[in-house]
Amino acid sequence: MAHKNTMTKPIEVRNPRTGKLDYVVVPPPGNLLEQQGIRLRQAQIHWQQIGVEGRIEALKHLKQAILSQRERLTEALVKDTGRLSISVLEIDSFLSSIDRWCTLAPELLQEAEKNTAIPFIHLQQTSVPYPLVGVISPWNFPLLLSTIDTIPALLAGCAVIVKPSEIASRFVAPLMTAITAVPDLCDVLAFVEGAGETGAALIEYVDLVCFTGSVATGRKVAEAAAKRFIPAFLELGGKDPAIVLASANLELATSAILWGSVVNTGQSCLSIERTYVAESIFEEFVERLVTKTDRLSLAYPTVESGEIGPIIAERQAAIISAHLLDAIDKGAVVHCGGKVENKDGGWWCRPTVLTQVNHSMKVMTEETFGPMMPVMPFSTVEEAINLANDTVYGLSAAVFAEEQEALAVARQINAGAISINDAGLTALIYEGEKNSFKYSGLGGSRMGAAALTRFMRKKAFLVKTNSAPDPWWFDRP
Amino acid sequence: MAHKNTMTKPIEVRNPRTGKLDYVVVPPPGNLLEQQGIRLRQAQIHWQQIGVEGRIEALKHLKQAILSQRERLTEALVKDTGRLSISVLEIDSFLSSIDRWCTLAPELLQEAEKNTAIPFIHLQQTSVPYPLVGVISPWNFPLLLSTIDTIPALLAGCAVIVKPSEIASRFVAPLMTAITAVPDLCDVLAFVEGAGETGAALIEYVDLVCFTGSVATGRKVAEAAAKRFIPAFLELGGKDPAIVLASANLELATSAILWGSVVNTGQSCLSIERTYVAESIFEEFVERLVTKTDRLSLAYPTVESGEIGPIIAERQAAIISAHLLDAIDKGAVVHCGGKVENKDGGWWCRPTVLTQVNHSMKVMTEETFGPMMPVMPFSTVEEAINLANDTVYGLSAAVFAEEQEALAVARQINAGAISINDAGLTALIYEGEKNSFKYSGLGGSRMGAAALTRFMRKKAFLVKTNSAPDPWWFDRP
Repeated sequence: MAHKNTMTKPIEVRNPRTGKLDYVVVPPPGNLLEQQGIRLRQAQIHWQQIGVEGRIEALKHLKQAILSQRERLTEALVKDTGRLSISVLEIDSFLSSIDRWCTLAPELLQEAEKNTAIPFIHLQQTSVPYPLVGVISPWNFPLLLSTIDTIPALLAGCAVIVKPSEIASRFVAPLMTAITAVPDLCDVLAFVEGAGETGAALIEYVDLVCFTGSVATGRKVAEAAAKRFIPAFLELGGKDPAIVLASANLELATSAILWGSVVNTGQSCLSIERTYVAESIFEEFVERLVTKTDRLSLAYPTVESGEIGPIIAERQAAIISAHLLDAIDKGAVVHCGGKVENKDGGWWCRPTVLTQVNHSMKVMTEETFGPMMPVMPFSTVEEAINLANDTVYGLSAAVFAEEQEALAVARQINAGAISINDAGLTALIYEGEKNSFKYSGLGGSRMGAAALTRFMRKKAFLVKTNSAPDPWWFDRP
Repeated sequence: MAHKNTMTKPIEVRNPRTGKLDYVVVPPPGNLLEQQGIRLRQAQIHWQQIGVEGRIEALKHLKQAILSQRERLTEALVKDTGRLSISVLEIDSFLSSIDRWCTLAPELLQEAEKNTAIPFIHLQQTSVPYPLVGVISPWNFPLLLSTIDTIPALLAGCAVIVKPSEIASRFVAPLMTAITAVPDLCDVLAFVEGAGETGAALIEYVDLVCFTGSVATGRKVAEAAAKRFIPAFLELGGKDPAIVLASANLELATSAILWGSVVNTGQSCLSIERTYVAESIFEEFVERLVTKTDRLSLAYPTVESGEIGPIIAERQAAIISAHLLDAIDKGAVVHCGGKVENKDGGWWCRPTVLTQVNHSMKVMTEETFGPMMPVMPFSTVEEAINLANDTVYGLSAAVFAEEQEALAVARQINAGAISINDAGLTALIYEGEKNSFKYSGLGGSRMGAAALTRFMRKKAFLVKTNSAPDPWWFDRP
């Protein structure tokens, strides 16, 4: 109850392309948030009662309402993030996630109901939704990451309160217009704007919290949730490695790694952040990678211009720059890109290929979250695996090689999802259930069937049948 | 790293029947614990490699070794807890849990491996054990609760380090004799003796922690685990209600509730702690319950004497006494039992039936953990459900009524497992997967298949097939 009953200060928000403070977030006072929690919890009873069919109907209705807000939503997301094609993609992915979950939910909810006969006992299993789920989401994919957990939670029967990052929440207004058009849904789905204080207050009111963001904040979320004995599902940082063995298809590997490293300007938890290449193909790999990188250009001066958008968060620009300077200082060679620059108030970084790198450099050990491609040679497969595992993170990874060889390496990497002969497939394939390793997260998988079922508690009814002997195992008087 | 490299003080342990300090626990120094963690982690690699067949063989060998230590083990458990028949039962249950898990494990581990073909992608799923699991267990069922999570964790392929309660760890020596007789197993299964400090130190070295005990300590465990981003599976307190509707079989209900309330002297998280009975049958219920209770006697002066053993922990005797005095002070009527008394240094409490109780009394709201049976009448089913749910706990419950009527009530109780026409079935039936509600716990279910699978992380391999188009969704340069 961080700021209960106190008035809250408006937060001015920077535009990533202009650097200007052109948007204002007004966090709700604590008592309003508390009331909203009570209201959502009350409405959740009906939401659960209408069953999965009723909830699917509401979400299909939402999809139509989103389509009619599409233009406004795109515009807001472009302002939030300074990039266009990924904004379009966020909306497309969000819409197709509604379809996907509406198709999957009925079976998953049916599977949650189970009857088992065991000697003398009739065991009936059911699952009940956590009444109120809180979602705290980051600025790198503002729409996608504020809804990725929300849609399955809603279909499971939960009410959901979402607090997107204050750095990129212009999209909330058009989204709310769409949500408000769906009567049943708007009672159980709320978005609140605010910063860390609002997120902290929210954790005090919910029954389960989903958090996507940094390790530092994730730890605070986990501790606050632990105090209240509520589950925390954390999706945190990564320092995803790519390993390229001598048997790899270099044409494919360089394209995939380039894409995996620079898509969304590298502002993705599962972007490739470091690449290890077999000595024998190292030079050719770097040459091809640099050639392909040179073909990319900044999305400047207009959003339609090129592939690489601005760095959304100003504080991230400082981190990328620090990693770059640290690497150069320690002897790294820059093949292309190589600096963070300010243009008309926005921060930009051209895709950068670095060699002569090692694990004394931040760019190889800390999360950079920028379009950075440090490439390091290895002599043995064991060395490559050790380098890949030499990290506090364990989100995902990529291996390029002949398939069986690649799989054998992948099995030895301590990470939850490993793309073989491609990069970042976790972002595209939702079927693969996975858990994060080390500091990359905690709790149920956001992918696979668990993405929905983790929002429900299991309940067991143990019915003694008339045929059961009494006493069971202990003489009853 | 609570007490790293410091010498630790021996802890003198009280005998629950004599009150004498006749056992000494010597906690390991922090550096020794750290080394043990490293050794277990090293040995886990082999343990995982020998596969489930190898692990089953080791556990079957353990079962034989336990059988040859049975007499010593029983003797130690009787000293630890002051009661005999439940000690015998603990050993039997432990042995049958080995058989049960050895039967179930191969299929559960096979199910964890899965292949799925999705367009252009071959998805391979696997599960890998958390290398080192920590188990912190309580004094009420010292053997059973220190092994209930340990056996499935071992079969999943984890190494396990167990810290039982310092109040009742005499059983560790004979158990270690048995474990030491199994070469593969003794490398991956360690017991350490110590108090809270040792438990706290252990959390710093493991990859997952299972804790059974109080809410207060459980919260500390959860917060420490959250800081390290390791899963915490908590099994905490309960204030389990029983509801007896007018349609109940009173003969059965009184026997089951009596058993569920007083077994192990009420020292069980899932014992019935409060009973709500329909007005129309209230008097008859109380009369029958008191009659049956009167037939029970204390296991005094010898362990063979009666059904009700001593209160194991001295601090618990003080809590039971305080709840009793608080209730009497507020107007409760004692029908039998009614005091906590010291006999020859041990603390004893006869099974106690109370009426004229209400929710202003501790005995109706806080965990008593003693042979206490407060009985309260209700006039409507709604009232009964509201009273049952008026608690910070949500572990389990019991409902007595015609089966369909009972199930309808059970669905409205906020608890993970509900026995119908019996009490405490969760302790006997391991098949029913369940989650705790509110302060009663957190994390994966100790029952059902999840009891084993929760010790493994899911890993997804996403293999791009040659038929996949490139680029995927985004123009790659």
